Amino acid sequence: MTQVYARVALIGLGLIASSMAHAMRANGLAGQIVGHAKSAETRATALELGLCDHVYATAAEAVAGADLVVLAVPVGAMAAIAEEIGPHLAPGCTVTDVGSVKQAVIAAVAPYIPEGVQFIPGHPMAGTEYSGPRSGFATLFQNRWWLLTPAPEVDPAALARLQLLLTGMGAKVNLMDPPHHDQVLAVVSHTPHLIAYTMVGVADHLAQVSNSEVIEYSASGFRDFTRIAASDPTMWRDVFLTNKDAVLDILGRFAEELFVLQRAIRMGDGDHLHDYFTRTRAIRRGIIEAGQDTSAPDFGRSPASKPAGAA
Amino acid sequence: MTQVYARVALIGLGLIASSMAHAMRANGLAGQIVGHAKSAETRATALELGLCDHVYATAAEAVAGADLVVLAVPVGAMAAIAEEIGPHLAPGCTVTDVGSVKQAVIAAVAPYIPEGVQFIPGHPMAGTEYSGPRSGFATLFQNRWWLLTPAPEVDPAALARLQLLLTGMGAKVNLMDPPHHDQVLAVVSHTPHLIAYTMVGVADHLAQVSNSEVIEYSASGFRDFTRIAASDPTMWRDVFLTNKDAVLDILGRFAEELFVLQRAIRMGDGDHLHDYFTRTRAIRRGIIEAGQDTSAPDFGRSPASKPAGAA
Repeated sequence: MTQVYARVALIGLGLIASSMAHAMRANGLAGQIVGHAKSAETRATALELGLCDHVYATAAEAVAGADLVVLAVPVGAMAAIAEEIGPHLAPGCTVTDVGSVKQAVIAAVAPYIPEGVQFIPGHPMAGTEYSGPRSGFATLFQNRWWLLTPAPEVDPAALARLQLLLTGMGAKVNLMDPPHHDQVLAVVSHTPHLIAYTMVGVADHLAQVSNSEVIEYSASGFRDFTRIAASDPTMWRDVFLTNKDAVLDILGRFAEELFVLQRAIRMGDGDHLHDYFTRTRAIRRGIIEAGQDTSAPDFGRSPASKPAGAA
Repeated sequence: MTQVYARVALIGLGLIASSMAHAMRANGLAGQIVGHAKSAETRATALELGLCDHVYATAAEAVAGADLVVLAVPVGAMAAIAEEIGPHLAPGCTVTDVGSVKQAVIAAVAPYIPEGVQFIPGHPMAGTEYSGPRSGFATLFQNRWWLLTPAPEVDPAALARLQLLLTGMGAKVNLMDPPHHDQVLAVVSHTPHLIAYTMVGVADHLAQVSNSEVIEYSASGFRDFTRIAASDPTMWRDVFLTNKDAVLDILGRFAEELFVLQRAIRMGDGDHLHDYFTRTRAIRRGIIEAGQDTSAPDFGRSPASKPAGAA
């Protein structure tokens, strides 16, 4: 594949940025990859793993001369980073981000983008429960959606160039307006994460069932929730604080719907439960047909074996 | 491995019973395996796949001469089956079941167990989102818990013999009293399933986000919920109707806890959210250390590829 950008600056070097580095290298999409992370240890790891050709102690230094700048920090850290790098962005460069919320990021970043620089907000719908520079891998974006929410006045050439990079890493690209993005994400990602965190928290707080019982017997459903409830706490705190309205809307609907099912259980209304549980099967089929999950039973998980020495 | 039972009768030929058949055959644990299912098609499939040596149109015929009878039907169907088979059970035989609720199954089955027959209620903590006779496989129980909830007066020799079968199929066995079993399962399995069904239902009912968007962007968290929300509707209806009190208790706690987090979002209390999301990580680590889930990122799912011909 041919090079799309001569110099890409990754600001923040966690799961998404490190996966982008691997994917850009694997596909020859970037001439040079440079990076910045707040922590010296993370910067050293990025060099050690070959994620970056150079690392910089400040974001301002990292963006100098870059034709693509990727903001890959928690949503709550975007404003300060944007303010810092604004004056150092090269004319003609493109700035994108990978935040899970778009309206708040646009409000935080857009004011600091100078004339002659294109800001194209973005969001890869991909991730794992791991974080940090060692968690990235080149195929993370394979067959996953990467949503872009550019303003109407964006330069079409800059947009096309960014899309070339994203599809080059294996992603599928769609455009969306920022409010709709935040609403969709509240449904497919933010509320499910909050609910998973809550369920794990409930189990943690119970007196009559011990944590060791919860852990040992988790394969009957609970363990699936613990995976997403193991995601990065800072990232998720920021998501909920910045996509507040959409999340509260979906949470309200969730509580309503849960109360209706709770009442059906209390009243012994088996038909209601059976109908409800039958309709939800169709969505699972749709996800598998759309290539967005594996059809292998139990996600194709191999039976976990007991680590040596464990009781 | 040596044969544990001469003739095992599987009543119900779904995921659990068919997996037991595969596992017993793979390990030489049963002399003969016979079965009954209500549907003639299921019975024919069981013969075709070699799950059973003989199948019978009635449960009464299937249990005749068996030294182990496994009730593997939805919890709501247990009473009628027990009443039917009671007079046909061979003296000295053991009856067990694989229902996800224990108090209700005991109340439904025990009255029909004649003198000289041992009833040892059981529950394998294993499953997938698939159901039916074709969904079984020999390793389903590998390293999974199989809980038994026998009455104190159970014959120790009968109990030891059943344990031999279960460990022979790869399971780990624990004993538990029935009320505690139902409480533990309400936390680790029943409530998580109800919540997953609810979240999928919410997404299905939204007007402002289309089902096709939910499906396409599901990899950002939602798809994990759809797997368990694709489980068998009849089985789950019966679970909620028969473990009502424990599930309603946990649902009440869940709603409380969710409201506290919802309020933290509304008030912008980032510290509360961050602390909460940090504690839940520890439980995930415990589950991986206990060998109850894989540590592979994203359950080790392979990136799903688009089926041929899909848009």
